[in-house]
Amino acid sequence: MSQQPGRIMAGEMAEQPAVLRRILQEGAPRIREVAAAIAARSPRFVLLTARGTSDNAALYAKYLLEIQLGLPCGLTSMSTTTAYGARPDLTDVLVITVSQSGGSPDLVASTKAAREAGAITLAVTNNPDSPLAAVSEFHIDILAGPEKALPATKTYTASLLALYLFVEGLRGGDGAAAKVLPDLATQVLSRQDEVRQLASRYRFAERMVITSRGYGYPTAKEAALKLMETSYIPALAYSGADLLHGPLAMVDNISPVIAVVTDGKGGQALQPVLDRLRGRGADLVVVGPSSQVEAASAGFALPTDGVPEDLQPILEILPLQRLAYEVTIARGQDPDAPRALAKVTETS
Amino acid sequence: MSQQPGRIMAGEMAEQPAVLRRILQEGAPRIREVAAAIAARSPRFVLLTARGTSDNAALYAKYLLEIQLGLPCGLTSMSTTTAYGARPDLTDVLVITVSQSGGSPDLVASTKAAREAGAITLAVTNNPDSPLAAVSEFHIDILAGPEKALPATKTYTASLLALYLFVEGLRGGDGAAAKVLPDLATQVLSRQDEVRQLASRYRFAERMVITSRGYGYPTAKEAALKLMETSYIPALAYSGADLLHGPLAMVDNISPVIAVVTDGKGGQALQPVLDRLRGRGADLVVVGPSSQVEAASAGFALPTDGVPEDLQPILEILPLQRLAYEVTIARGQDPDAPRALAKVTETS
Repeated sequence: MSQQPGRIMAGEMAEQPAVLRRILQEGAPRIREVAAAIAARSPRFVLLTARGTSDNAALYAKYLLEIQLGLPCGLTSMSTTTAYGARPDLTDVLVITVSQSGGSPDLVASTKAAREAGAITLAVTNNPDSPLAAVSEFHIDILAGPEKALPATKTYTASLLALYLFVEGLRGGDGAAAKVLPDLATQVLSRQDEVRQLASRYRFAERMVITSRGYGYPTAKEAALKLMETSYIPALAYSGADLLHGPLAMVDNISPVIAVVTDGKGGQALQPVLDRLRGRGADLVVVGPSSQVEAASAGFALPTDGVPEDLQPILEILPLQRLAYEVTIARGQDPDAPRALAKVTETS
Repeated sequence: MSQQPGRIMAGEMAEQPAVLRRILQEGAPRIREVAAAIAARSPRFVLLTARGTSDNAALYAKYLLEIQLGLPCGLTSMSTTTAYGARPDLTDVLVITVSQSGGSPDLVASTKAAREAGAITLAVTNNPDSPLAAVSEFHIDILAGPEKALPATKTYTASLLALYLFVEGLRGGDGAAAKVLPDLATQVLSRQDEVRQLASRYRFAERMVITSRGYGYPTAKEAALKLMETSYIPALAYSGADLLHGPLAMVDNISPVIAVVTDGKGGQALQPVLDRLRGRGADLVVVGPSSQVEAASAGFALPTDGVPEDLQPILEILPLQRLAYEVTIARGQDPDAPRALAKVTETS
């Protein structure tokens, strides 16, 4: 228990611009080398393996790999390997395992099994000395420094940037577009008062729905996870299309909705969903470009000029992490120490 | 709006044994032919595309394909094709699209794009005359008859059985183990009083957590969706391992938990999670073998003797569909006509 509730989480959120800068300056050359070595092996499919926050980072990588490289991807159902002993033929398959700690036994076991089954294995972790890094053929260090708060924040944005640079490396790009991120992250993080005001809206919320499409969808899932694990508000993340398939019944005057609207094709594909929500009188808060915020009940305007859509998730999550923190403080709980959460999850 | 609330949904749930029997007797030969033709093409990777209830059926197929056939699988992030125009190389890739109506424009578009990109395409629908069936190289008819209630029930179990027989066909099996299902389904459906009693537990619930591992995980997701779209209770589905990664903080004395415990390796892998939940004093209802129900707060004992683990999902969902129905009736709402739900979702 920290002395001042949320002190550790707040400190780690504030480190994010420095972490992003470190990855761009110190991490990028090594990431490029790893990407070049893997590109030379010409993988045909990619499987991504992760849990919790890292699973949302893996989903971001899935969008990048499918859209930028046309590589078909899947997210691993880990129990098929660890509980059922499935041993698929993984020739030409790149298996990327994302884990902050690199210590979860099931991730280590499934990565080891993948390597034995012929996969090219890459671990993306915050710990180069971890068992996961040891069993993987390749390793990328996300350089976020020790993370002590139980809700992961800086390791999430660090994983996103590392994965972005990796995918850029696979297609021979230099990732230069990412250079604007550290300064923009500083700007976004400085607007804490705006987030605190939004948080008051959810002080007594009994549930929340978070929606997006395309590159913003991993942000919606990560925001929901962050809200649940800190404030215990049941927060349901849906892709905009899935929301129309049923759970929309839950929205009317019952659930406030947060929409993560990217400035690009994902945001455009979300428009019919936003129109439906507005038509139903939903309480709609938007995180996205200012034009979208203005058409909603309230929101947080992100700087998106000069930021390609595929990099916007690294900024989008910042006000939403802060929102989870502020709502939790407002409810008299400690964001640093949610009940029951252990930093390394020992499922096997 | 039906005259008697829930009359249509109740009727369609009751049809399930007859639908299962029809698939086994009339549908199986054609499914075997399709499977043989696709097996001859030796797909190396499978992508599954679906939304809503069908997405949970697709997830069940993912477990079957990975465990029984060692085929690496992924669930499609549809917007990468429909919003971003990704055109991956899908040579040697089997793309399975599952859709009750076969009419959603985005599913039709993404299946068409997959076929143009070299994929072997298979549509699994309840409508052989649908646009989806027309654009796919192969089609399997799930033979469930018209489904009129907005919450899908009989098309879910029909999709599961059709997919089971397809995967059996891919590996040259005859699917004989499934023959016990129609009679067992009749038995399970006859125990409505037990489900009504369980439903009273959730009359005033403000949220629910549903967990499982392995083959039971799609059941957990489908049960959560059914509860949400009929009763509007926020029901959160987690794999047991993911639950320990954060959302467990939500459980203490706040959220009742339903665990779907298969009689097999998935259920075994869930045991540490069940122990944690019991240790925390959670209200735990189990759907699974009677030994597991006895160790819980309450539950619904499934007949699992002689039912292989990979077929249990077809029985497991039956009391949970009924639970969604009973909770909704108890809350004074109409399960046949949830607000805002359309039978064919027209996202593009």
